[in-house]
Amino acid sequence: MNLRIPGPTPCPPEVLQAMSREMINHRGPAFARIIEKVTARLKELFLTQSEVLVLTGSGTGGLEAMVVNTLSPGDEVLGLTNGYFGERLAAIAQDFGAKITRLDFPWGEPVDPGEVRQALKKNPNYKAVLLVHNETSTGVTNDLKGIAEIVREHDKLFLVDAVSSLGSLPCCMDAWGLDVVVTCSQKGWMAPPGLAMVGISSRGWKAVEQAKMPRHYWDFRTAKQYLARGQTSWTPAVSTFFALEVGLELMAREGLENIWERHRRVGQRAREGAKALGLSPLPPEPVASNTVTAIRAPEGLDVARLVKILLEEYDTDLAGGQGKLSGKIFRIGHLGYVTEADIDLTLKAIAKALPRAGYAIPQGLR
Amino acid sequence: MNLRIPGPTPCPPEVLQAMSREMINHRGPAFARIIEKVTARLKELFLTQSEVLVLTGSGTGGLEAMVVNTLSPGDEVLGLTNGYFGERLAAIAQDFGAKITRLDFPWGEPVDPGEVRQALKKNPNYKAVLLVHNETSTGVTNDLKGIAEIVREHDKLFLVDAVSSLGSLPCCMDAWGLDVVVTCSQKGWMAPPGLAMVGISSRGWKAVEQAKMPRHYWDFRTAKQYLARGQTSWTPAVSTFFALEVGLELMAREGLENIWERHRRVGQRAREGAKALGLSPLPPEPVASNTVTAIRAPEGLDVARLVKILLEEYDTDLAGGQGKLSGKIFRIGHLGYVTEADIDLTLKAIAKALPRAGYAIPQGLR
Repeated sequence: MNLRIPGPTPCPPEVLQAMSREMINHRGPAFARIIEKVTARLKELFLTQSEVLVLTGSGTGGLEAMVVNTLSPGDEVLGLTNGYFGERLAAIAQDFGAKITRLDFPWGEPVDPGEVRQALKKNPNYKAVLLVHNETSTGVTNDLKGIAEIVREHDKLFLVDAVSSLGSLPCCMDAWGLDVVVTCSQKGWMAPPGLAMVGISSRGWKAVEQAKMPRHYWDFRTAKQYLARGQTSWTPAVSTFFALEVGLELMAREGLENIWERHRRVGQRAREGAKALGLSPLPPEPVASNTVTAIRAPEGLDVARLVKILLEEYDTDLAGGQGKLSGKIFRIGHLGYVTEADIDLTLKAIAKALPRAGYAIPQGLR
Repeated sequence: MNLRIPGPTPCPPEVLQAMSREMINHRGPAFARIIEKVTARLKELFLTQSEVLVLTGSGTGGLEAMVVNTLSPGDEVLGLTNGYFGERLAAIAQDFGAKITRLDFPWGEPVDPGEVRQALKKNPNYKAVLLVHNETSTGVTNDLKGIAEIVREHDKLFLVDAVSSLGSLPCCMDAWGLDVVVTCSQKGWMAPPGLAMVGISSRGWKAVEQAKMPRHYWDFRTAKQYLARGQTSWTPAVSTFFALEVGLELMAREGLENIWERHRRVGQRAREGAKALGLSPLPPEPVASNTVTAIRAPEGLDVARLVKILLEEYDTDLAGGQGKLSGKIFRIGHLGYVTEADIDLTLKAIAKALPRAGYAIPQGLR
């Protein structure tokens, strides 16, 4: 199976093998060794000196954890949105009682740092700013570094969904001044889903101490206390820890900058390949994501049919569009365990399926 | 490794093998087939016609889900507690704003149905009753059926932590009138941790519609909508679904009553074996759990040392006591993938380690 959705992503064989190890006591010394190693490696890859907590749950769970641990009901929060996941993050904060002001940008366009500055100037009462670094639904990588500078200037708490960027794209927690960042095992980390990983700065921890949103399962304070003993608050997804440990070892061997460079090459290959078929990526090139490529459905293309043909006849699994982009784009995931050869294979399959789904590749390009 | 803690429990080889399958699209037809089969089998084993939802998280997450989906801040709730997990369940509800009245029973003793009736008579304002069916911390199985009758008489919402009972001990959701029951993959289900399973009655669903505690990740309404399409709200622990599917297949082949009977035999063997070494189970025999045996530390026994010797020299992993029972008991887990032979092996190891941890087995018993 050529699994080319933006997560779950394919896992290397040695990672899958680790998943089938026998169970261990999650309160014993064998697990303590693993969580200590996993946490140390995550800190290296998050580029932080601060704590990284590993929580059992989906990425969405990690995002809920970020929100409920740092905010209080009634807090004014600026939610930057330019896609499905930006809206979801704002919705989580709203569901727990934050007073969200949304600053919306068109889906497929990046968040404009200038407008963020204006918004923060206009209302000095915001406690926090929410941003999705890499908007998986549109294939746009937002200017996290630039926006972080502005958020720091205004001394706001900066809460970042880095689910499909961290570990694959440059995302420098300490250097850029990010307060909380969230990712999860099935994205760039080459492991199956089941674990969310959360980095928390010292400013983030101050917010944790003050936050009044209700929490129990996701409580960072409990997780921190248990981590000091080499444990998790509750029974963790032990097998996914085994897998993550192996994935992190492979990442350490490759080196973070090499991983970034590989994703840059792979992303470029996907976009160039799409263009070579007469297709257009949704986002402008300078903000196009190197972990997921969103391609506009050209006139006549039935996206659902394309995805079905690719799945059933070419063993290739692509993603369609989400929310209001449903039917209007399709997406190629390329994060984690991926090389240019995987992209070439995917593009070949797409080229064969396109005409049967309603789009004739222009003659000069065939 | 003879893993004899009350979870994670050992997994059969075919279950572990399933954990190493390659990733699939959690929004595609292959996953839909799995979740449909898993859900159907769970309904059979929960003995319910109502929905069973599978959520990605630990058992504690499933309990939080039960609380936030059925209660509102300010709701008066009766928390029945006779151990660590009863207190935890009450604490979750309290953290989310429920007004908890605790009815405490000694650790090692069962919840007394008569006192529950008195409490419900005394205060007609309770909206819900919380109970842990099988108190893993003390090895006591509460009289769920009897207490359920009383809760039904008073027409209260009955929220049950069945984490270490469901699938191993008789726990009849529909017949006994339980409103929400929670368990998780690493207990009786012979799979690794990562999934919580929640059964919700029609009364439970009415409470879900009225509940006002904040929720997003755990929202049952979202999960139900996605389940109708063969999906989960968020990216699930796909591998643990693979494993659970295999575990459930094994359980279906054995048959639920045979599984209950096996646990009954295994539990009895553990208690008789302990007595044969001159030791005393913590709970009175009629309420002693058949999934976990708690044994009082006799005069002179250093529990931490016993656990350490067993782990390091006898490849046997037991649990100590939790909370106020720490150092005062040790526990043998025997749920899920377990036979009498496993217990015999464990008892032999314990017999060898006991004298070195400060307890001389009385001469006639050696």
